[in-house]
Amino acid sequence: MQTYVVIVAGGSGKRMGSVLPKQFLLLKNKPVLYYTINAFLKALPECKVIVVLPEDHLELGKEIIDGYFDEQRIQLTVGGETRFHSVQNGLKLVEEEAIIFVHDGVRCLVSDELIRRCYETAMETGSAVPAVECRDSVRIITEDGNDPVDRSKLRLVQTPQTFHSKILLPAFAIDYKAWFTDEATVVEAFGLKVTLVPGEERNIKITNPIDLVIAEKILEE
Amino acid sequence: MQTYVVIVAGGSGKRMGSVLPKQFLLLKNKPVLYYTINAFLKALPECKVIVVLPEDHLELGKEIIDGYFDEQRIQLTVGGETRFHSVQNGLKLVEEEAIIFVHDGVRCLVSDELIRRCYETAMETGSAVPAVECRDSVRIITEDGNDPVDRSKLRLVQTPQTFHSKILLPAFAIDYKAWFTDEATVVEAFGLKVTLVPGEERNIKITNPIDLVIAEKILEE
Repeated sequence: MQTYVVIVAGGSGKRMGSVLPKQFLLLKNKPVLYYTINAFLKALPECKVIVVLPEDHLELGKEIIDGYFDEQRIQLTVGGETRFHSVQNGLKLVEEEAIIFVHDGVRCLVSDELIRRCYETAMETGSAVPAVECRDSVRIITEDGNDPVDRSKLRLVQTPQTFHSKILLPAFAIDYKAWFTDEATVVEAFGLKVTLVPGEERNIKITNPIDLVIAEKILEE
Repeated sequence: MQTYVVIVAGGSGKRMGSVLPKQFLLLKNKPVLYYTINAFLKALPECKVIVVLPEDHLELGKEIIDGYFDEQRIQLTVGGETRFHSVQNGLKLVEEEAIIFVHDGVRCLVSDELIRRCYETAMETGSAVPAVECRDSVRIITEDGNDPVDRSKLRLVQTPQTFHSKILLPAFAIDYKAWFTDEATVVEAFGLKVTLVPGEERNIKITNPIDLVIAEKILEE
């Protein structure tokens, strides 16, 4: 089965105190996005990669791809107003039946093992959404205060959210809703359940400046 | 008003792959527990500190206190079977009306600002529980799969959980329940609501080896 990887790198990086979106920041002298793309190319030697970027940064994305990779396997496309619209644009480039990974451009530390686990579960059940347990006590804000939540039942969701194309492509043909925070919620709105698989603590999102330091340490290990 | 700080350092540190509990590991050549105690002594110059340690490590705790601090302000006591019992033992040493902070021994990066925010809110409302927003999408495990949760309503709980002694001391006189995961749940079982205050992303728990590296970087900033 063909595999496609849609890497969503649409964020504007406001939290980093940097003009450059987070996926272009340097980690050991290479852009974060390089590591993200490379993780999939290594784990899935036959995969096709679709990188979705904000229009203003298409040129920079092209430079990274031309500079580091065999460009024939990687396509670039422009992002939309929300994550949903960005993924929708990326999916337009999927031309055959496939397992499709949708991955955050700033989760550059995803491992081979996690990518393979997602592939196998998506082949078997149609979907694979990595998630980790919550280390902290959790509360929920209510109308008149807050209540404790049983954290043993909660899972923190990561990417790559992975689906069979027969599920993901028709799901992304439905109308956008404000509560579509990730691909799993879109597939559920389409009427299907998703399968969770164990994620990884190290599969962090580069969101704050300290995350670059953490990522560097994890790469060194 | 007098202030007491109960520092709970009862963990056995199994996740670190180290025989030594996490609060004794070195961070820039000083034990994690040193930084935790020091944060409160700096922020609250008049406070009294009660450190609760596993029986096997009382001696090591005493060495840290004698080595770094004016011991008259710091008392040591032995931990119990659960966090609830450890806090209960610590509270036995509170001798007057006070604002009482209960803090994880491994949260060594708590700031002056957070300590003062908790103090002020506990003075005003009787309680202050620091909590931060959740950066990831969240799901809840159900009987037949999993469902999305609106993360905008969720908060991840930190310490110092801070209370007026008139609330905390009688609350800890009630019988232990298995779902007492922190002080807030005990106070609620006693029949009172708790007030949330904004926590801090940097106020991490030293749980995994990578956390020591992160903590070192945050200390350097």
